[in-house]
Amino acid sequence: MTDTNKTTNQQWGGRFSEPVDAFVARFTASVEFDQRMAKQDIQGSIAHATMLAKVGVLTDEERDQIIQGLTEIEQEIARGEFEWSVELEDVHMNIEARLTQKIGITGKKLHTGRSRNDQVATDIRLYMRDEIDFLLEEVTRLQQGILSLAERNTDTIMPGFTHLQTAQPVTFGHHLMAWYEMAQRDYERLADCRKRVNILPLGAAALAGTTYPIDRNMTADLLGFERPTYNSLDSVSDRDFAIEFTSAASITMMHLSRWAEELVMWASAQFNFIFLPDRFCTGSSIMPQKKNPDVPELVRGKTGRVYGHLMGLLTLMKSQCLAYNKDNQEDKEPLFDTVDTLRGSLRSFADMIPAIEARGEYMYEAARRGFSTATDLADYLVRKGVAFRDAHEIVGKAVGFGVKEGRDLSEMTLEELQGFGDMIEQDVFEVLTLEGSVAARDHIGGTAPAQVKAAIERAKAELAERLK
Amino acid sequence: MTDTNKTTNQQWGGRFSEPVDAFVARFTASVEFDQRMAKQDIQGSIAHATMLAKVGVLTDEERDQIIQGLTEIEQEIARGEFEWSVELEDVHMNIEARLTQKIGITGKKLHTGRSRNDQVATDIRLYMRDEIDFLLEEVTRLQQGILSLAERNTDTIMPGFTHLQTAQPVTFGHHLMAWYEMAQRDYERLADCRKRVNILPLGAAALAGTTYPIDRNMTADLLGFERPTYNSLDSVSDRDFAIEFTSAASITMMHLSRWAEELVMWASAQFNFIFLPDRFCTGSSIMPQKKNPDVPELVRGKTGRVYGHLMGLLTLMKSQCLAYNKDNQEDKEPLFDTVDTLRGSLRSFADMIPAIEARGEYMYEAARRGFSTATDLADYLVRKGVAFRDAHEIVGKAVGFGVKEGRDLSEMTLEELQGFGDMIEQDVFEVLTLEGSVAARDHIGGTAPAQVKAAIERAKAELAERLK
Amino acid sequence: MTDTNKTTNQQWGGRFSEPVDAFVARFTASVEFDQRMAKQDIQGSIAHATMLAKVGVLTDEERDQIIQGLTEIEQEIARGEFEWSVELEDVHMNIEARLTQKIGITGKKLHTGRSRNDQVATDIRLYMRDEIDFLLEEVTRLQQGILSLAERNTDTIMPGFTHLQTAQPVTFGHHLMAWYEMAQRDYERLADCRKRVNILPLGAAALAGTTYPIDRNMTADLLGFERPTYNSLDSVSDRDFAIEFTSAASITMMHLSRWAEELVMWASAQFNFIFLPDRFCTGSSIMPQKKNPDVPELVRGKTGRVYGHLMGLLTLMKSQCLAYNKDNQEDKEPLFDTVDTLRGSLRSFADMIPAIEARGEYMYEAARRGFSTATDLADYLVRKGVAFRDAHEIVGKAVGFGVKEGRDLSEMTLEELQGFGDMIEQDVFEVLTLEGSVAARDHIGGTAPAQVKAAIERAKAELAERLK
Amino acid sequence: MTDTNKTTNQQWGGRFSEPVDAFVARFTASVEFDQRMAKQDIQGSIAHATMLAKVGVLTDEERDQIIQGLTEIEQEIARGEFEWSVELEDVHMNIEARLTQKIGITGKKLHTGRSRNDQVATDIRLYMRDEIDFLLEEVTRLQQGILSLAERNTDTIMPGFTHLQTAQPVTFGHHLMAWYEMAQRDYERLADCRKRVNILPLGAAALAGTTYPIDRNMTADLLGFERPTYNSLDSVSDRDFAIEFTSAASITMMHLSRWAEELVMWASAQFNFIFLPDRFCTGSSIMPQKKNPDVPELVRGKTGRVYGHLMGLLTLMKSQCLAYNKDNQEDKEPLFDTVDTLRGSLRSFADMIPAIEARGEYMYEAARRGFSTATDLADYLVRKGVAFRDAHEIVGKAVGFGVKEGRDLSEMTLEELQGFGDMIEQDVFEVLTLEGSVAARDHIGGTAPAQVKAAIERAKAELAERLK
Repeated sequence: MTDTNKTTNQQWGGRFSEPVDAFVARFTASVEFDQRMAKQDIQGSIAHATMLAKVGVLTDEERDQIIQGLTEIEQEIARGEFEWSVELEDVHMNIEARLTQKIGITGKKLHTGRSRNDQVATDIRLYMRDEIDFLLEEVTRLQQGILSLAERNTDTIMPGFTHLQTAQPVTFGHHLMAWYEMAQRDYERLADCRKRVNILPLGAAALAGTTYPIDRNMTADLLGFERPTYNSLDSVSDRDFAIEFTSAASITMMHLSRWAEELVMWASAQFNFIFLPDRFCTGSSIMPQKKNPDVPELVRGKTGRVYGHLMGLLTLMKSQCLAYNKDNQEDKEPLFDTVDTLRGSLRSFADMIPAIEARGEYMYEAARRGFSTATDLADYLVRKGVAFRDAHEIVGKAVGFGVKEGRDLSEMTLEELQGFGDMIEQDVFEVLTLEGSVAARDHIGGTAPAQVKAAIERAKAELAERLK
Repeated sequence: MTDTNKTTNQQWGGRFSEPVDAFVARFTASVEFDQRMAKQDIQGSIAHATMLAKVGVLTDEERDQIIQGLTEIEQEIARGEFEWSVELEDVHMNIEARLTQKIGITGKKLHTGRSRNDQVATDIRLYMRDEIDFLLEEVTRLQQGILSLAERNTDTIMPGFTHLQTAQPVTFGHHLMAWYEMAQRDYERLADCRKRVNILPLGAAALAGTTYPIDRNMTADLLGFERPTYNSLDSVSDRDFAIEFTSAASITMMHLSRWAEELVMWASAQFNFIFLPDRFCTGSSIMPQKKNPDVPELVRGKTGRVYGHLMGLLTLMKSQCLAYNKDNQEDKEPLFDTVDTLRGSLRSFADMIPAIEARGEYMYEAARRGFSTATDLADYLVRKGVAFRDAHEIVGKAVGFGVKEGRDLSEMTLEELQGFGDMIEQDVFEVLTLEGSVAARDHIGGTAPAQVKAAIERAKAELAERLK
Repeated sequence: MTDTNKTTNQQWGGRFSEPVDAFVARFTASVEFDQRMAKQDIQGSIAHATMLAKVGVLTDEERDQIIQGLTEIEQEIARGEFEWSVELEDVHMNIEARLTQKIGITGKKLHTGRSRNDQVATDIRLYMRDEIDFLLEEVTRLQQGILSLAERNTDTIMPGFTHLQTAQPVTFGHHLMAWYEMAQRDYERLADCRKRVNILPLGAAALAGTTYPIDRNMTADLLGFERPTYNSLDSVSDRDFAIEFTSAASITMMHLSRWAEELVMWASAQFNFIFLPDRFCTGSSIMPQKKNPDVPELVRGKTGRVYGHLMGLLTLMKSQCLAYNKDNQEDKEPLFDTVDTLRGSLRSFADMIPAIEARGEYMYEAARRGFSTATDLADYLVRKGVAFRDAHEIVGKAVGFGVKEGRDLSEMTLEELQGFGDMIEQDVFEVLTLEGSVAARDHIGGTAPAQVKAAIERAKAELAERLK
Repeated sequence: MTDTNKTTNQQWGGRFSEPVDAFVARFTASVEFDQRMAKQDIQGSIAHATMLAKVGVLTDEERDQIIQGLTEIEQEIARGEFEWSVELEDVHMNIEARLTQKIGITGKKLHTGRSRNDQVATDIRLYMRDEIDFLLEEVTRLQQGILSLAERNTDTIMPGFTHLQTAQPVTFGHHLMAWYEMAQRDYERLADCRKRVNILPLGAAALAGTTYPIDRNMTADLLGFERPTYNSLDSVSDRDFAIEFTSAASITMMHLSRWAEELVMWASAQFNFIFLPDRFCTGSSIMPQKKNPDVPELVRGKTGRVYGHLMGLLTLMKSQCLAYNKDNQEDKEPLFDTVDTLRGSLRSFADMIPAIEARGEYMYEAARRGFSTATDLADYLVRKGVAFRDAHEIVGKAVGFGVKEGRDLSEMTLEELQGFGDMIEQDVFEVLTLEGSVAARDHIGGTAPAQVKAAIERAKAELAERLK
């Protein structure tokens, strides 16, 4: 006797009078992408079988047979010898059919007290937990890479931009520590998301729970989940965690896109602020001189796909009535691709960032031009008793003069400066240096090298604590 | 002397040689929407002035004048007497100009040691913190409403659906507790988001910090922030919290859209599961018999605008180089509209849900039809020693027979049932009742009335703890 | 001498001092997905070579060698014998390297006067044109399927819904013809998009055109393009057509999601309006009675991924400076997946819709209840001289009475009806029948069977014209 | 007797037993935003009344009274004297109530043979048609602005970029003509969308048509529509045109975001390619030297809101069953905001672009550096008989040498060049000039000044044709 219904060639075919249309079978099958969760499917099944034996639904012998069979199947899969069948629809049916093939009728008992609905929900949560743990490590590695580059550049002066116009001098290390903060929030959001992933849906069965005397706390413990879910309908219909993860991933990709934009710009001949090692660049099939910053560009482009997956998942769940619907099968591909994209993007940035070299002399020269110490002059005037808004106007006129003359503030004579405000004295030239400007912003969060060093130390302590 | 540059009619116009184009002035002004943050702007300015006096940048007298002036302005705004000017661009400039008008040159000193970039970042965080706190209360009220309806329906049997096909009987209270769990996660996500909102950016000034000896910890304390931000560039360019909030709001709206879908369906003549009080419905201008479930429909529709705002904000920040760019002005309208939409939607659901009346008899009748106890029969067979997969097939054939005959499983004779499996005995009819089916799913998260009551108690304890 | 640079193992490596990082090479390679365009790449290359020979850049012999080589490669690919190499980055390099392997140095000449930038733009446009042509056929087939079902149901009365409340009776054929109109716009949008796809970018080279005396009109003719593009920078940076196509696809998927929602609802026990053949449904692993409408559910779910791809592509192109950037490589996967999703979804609906069976008796019964002829009563009153707004109120009261009494309007006595308006006479009962109500809406676009038949005839004529 | 039901204070309240909840009334009302369509609502009503008189449903006298009343109301609205009432829900009810107030019971007859469902669909199509016509004019004005700037810069040489790396020299006029082509497609997409907007839904009534003998062709003619819709259910549930419009708008905003990105970059001190007149810029409240390119930045930021509206509308319509649902009320605000955003963005760009001044000397200097003629050298080698791929490698090595030495190709000696390839001769220096490089790309779409001039002429002819 075979495992599938003769008329319908499906395991569930009892009440069906014709087989599924061949195209429909392919169209609705998920095994091509959900086989990625085979490891978690087996892990969940072993825990389920262990629990079933504990509560007396399986004998210890049956449990051991099942575990033995599943372990062998896991190895078959790892060795690439497992034959996936689209006819068997999904990863769950494929593994169960193989188990039954191996150990006979006992294999069929594994599905007692569960349904594919809670089984897939469990698999995907196990899978996501593993991936989040890996991604948290990658974010940490990225932060370490940023710190390493920042540490070499705590005193490297560059123009700080707003509106892509030179605003005030900052240090490159300070700029990089802004990236660090962004990554820090990425870490926190992923960690918060993990809390809501790490809850066990198994036991919800199809939607209402099961009549078997299952022990969900035990299964949760076996699989390292925080606790079982509290409502069976919610257990099989909840995909919040997929959306929350993709949302956190979108923000991370957004951050990478901002850094990518800066890297691409800084690597241009016009800025020339950084050197990107050749191994992160590619060339052109037609223009022999080109060295293209492919990695940041590609990551910037990949932002779109993660945003898209977020939108896709939100759309997927909109207006879906409870509990499980076939629509939900569509949660996996966007989730998997988001994981892959985030892994690849974080990896390439974690590798690349510490390998960047700052071209400090170009940065310095760019900061020297562009009236970047105009605010310092205004602050100087305020210290001489001028109201800030008036000081602002005085400096504005001096800058207007400088634009016309092609000279920076520090290149004007004292007399010229006094023409805009007679309270200006010789000591003004001290505040017009880049070093003086930067050093003067000496408070928590400010760009003074001392503050940047302190920020790096705080960050190192955080990471050390995290990695303990 | 006026506050604005003659040539350019703008406060910052010193270096400009022509006034801003009249259309551009309107196009780039934000005061029409950012005046909503006036309260927070004044709150932030008072804390800033207090700190400036503490560190000696302002005299105590100047501080008191400023606080007095700002307090009066707040009252003018509250009374609707404040004249907002588009020429003054934004809420900050409007309030500062009025302050200077009231208290003279001292008003101009308030802007010492800060910039509009960190000022607006502070305002929006204060504003979001207030709104999140209110929304957390509304989610709680919504959860209370769900509990109240669930409590009245712990034993009300309805069909549980998967694929909108009758699957297994559940209780209406159980279904509602799935909603409760969804709302619980909404609460948690908002609370997690609040942590990242509640950090003080003030002191970052334009982007690099300030040369004044500010005390950012003091300002953070005064405003109830957890701590100051650690990096000035990040402080003025970070909009993560806006995206994270909108993402949490999107998931909440998604939940409401699912409930709305169910409510609309349940209120249809075909389902007839619930009675929606007239005050949450409207009629038709042409069809006198219509009573339309407008509130759930509209909320379902409003899901789109919140998803849209999320996409808008993600797009806004994509590839933006640091630090502040004018683009960022576009963060406010989607954020404000998301807040308004979420407030209105939560309010209407929190009002409406406890007022719903279940039509238990229609629910019961629907559950009775549709072979909803087929799984129970399969489980019965397993207890008689049949492997689950085989039991599934036996029941499938019985159902096929029932479909043809137009009879439910419980309406077949023992002989008929035995025709599908000879291990079936008289006691089978006990497991084929709805009450038996429901009561048998008696484990944590299951639909048994006892479990639903326990879930309600746990939820009540949670809310009591929260409201302590 | 090998084809690739020793130091860098890349064809473009002349100026590079280290090889591309192994992970970066995999991360930036596109051959895994762009090999799908191999046919179009070869087609474009053959046309390019033909043109190069015409203008004297290649000899006729060289052209023939190239065409011969490419033709053989196409067959190798078709037979699955072609070895794709990630090291060779993309489909273009893979094919060209193989060509050079086959025909020697002449193979290298094929790339004269073009670049990968315009080559890939040409390939993707050729590919999209082929796919759009196929999709237009599928939309047509879908429309034919709708017509076939509508034709069998021009007189089948069902309730028309607004707000999912029974509004007025319509015919099922009329409802289906609404779907036809939606599909008709889908057809038109795709056809409009095709106009903007069908323009030749080849000749733009990297971004500025080429110094070779190319004849772009000739290449356009050879490839069946309407004309060459007018600007080389635009040619290599334009991805509008990808967005426009995905946008048209999104609207189509939105339509399918609406029909899917209706089909799922109609297939529920509560509505029971249609019979979906078993071959478009699947069963449950745990509930033997289930017959799930998987196809409409899955298509409804797939809507999300197409919306997501649209968002992804829009994000991709946002703020990209001209001309080509590596980001643009990210256009292909969302586009390919959109094509595949649309093909599968259209195919399954085109197969399924004509196989649906209406359960006319349930539809009729549902229409009979629910006061669906209330508007007809109001119109009757207007014909008796009552202002419409007053008639509306009179009927509203009669319905209120009916709700309380549990009786439809047609089930009240003349006396009862006259209690609400004394102008009501015996002839009122004629307008309260479903048949009378439906037949009375007898104008273009109305639900009268005569109009539905006319609409079907018009549609058939349209399709006949299209297929000529 | 008043117009509204005493118990329920709503016009449709006949069957309702309690008034709408006060908050619900505000929450569901649309008059605050839909009053923007008052002009179109009146225009549609006048046509409807005219048709009703023609077919005998109204007398000529009634028609004239109605038209007179509506005309007066339109003037009241124009003068700002009309009192909008939230209690009356929407623009339609407000105007009709006022009409009845003015002309008595005849006002109530206007609603004969229509419903709010088809009325609002008609209003929004009339409104969109007006707006599209205006937007088409603005796109034309923008194209003229681009042509004007391009015409002044047909010979201005700048670096052409790919990957933001100097690729090959182009002319600024050529770059601008890429923008022209993008705008041209924007025009075409809007015009295609207009075709599907310009169809009359009036006559569909609530969803099924009406029992009155209406003449929909006449109404279509009166309102300038191409034809009436063919299906009543589709007429009231179709929002494709809103999505299609927002999609076209999204692509236009994407284009503007790309130009904005370039303008912001070009206006930076690092590029310094253009001068943006002060009137399109604003200053800083703290940094007196700043001149921020606010207009392009803000438009770039506004891209997000339009993308967001597109996603919002797609979400709105996902899975909505036919026909009208309250959800659809949510179509208006995103549509209106998209229109406003597009108007403002196009206007500011159409004003700003022709006022830009190119800094030709900086552009030229930037093109001179960066090995921008490397491709020309490769092409030169090919003409000397080297295969392209080999030429590419030779030039790559020369560039590597140049990078190390800090010299451009044109700055090397003949001997040095010959070290890389002995076929190089004295005439090589001709192809290494920027002017020679640009002029050599002399085919349709190429960057040669002659081609750019031809492209401008073709464009002018197109616009002249369009404006005829």
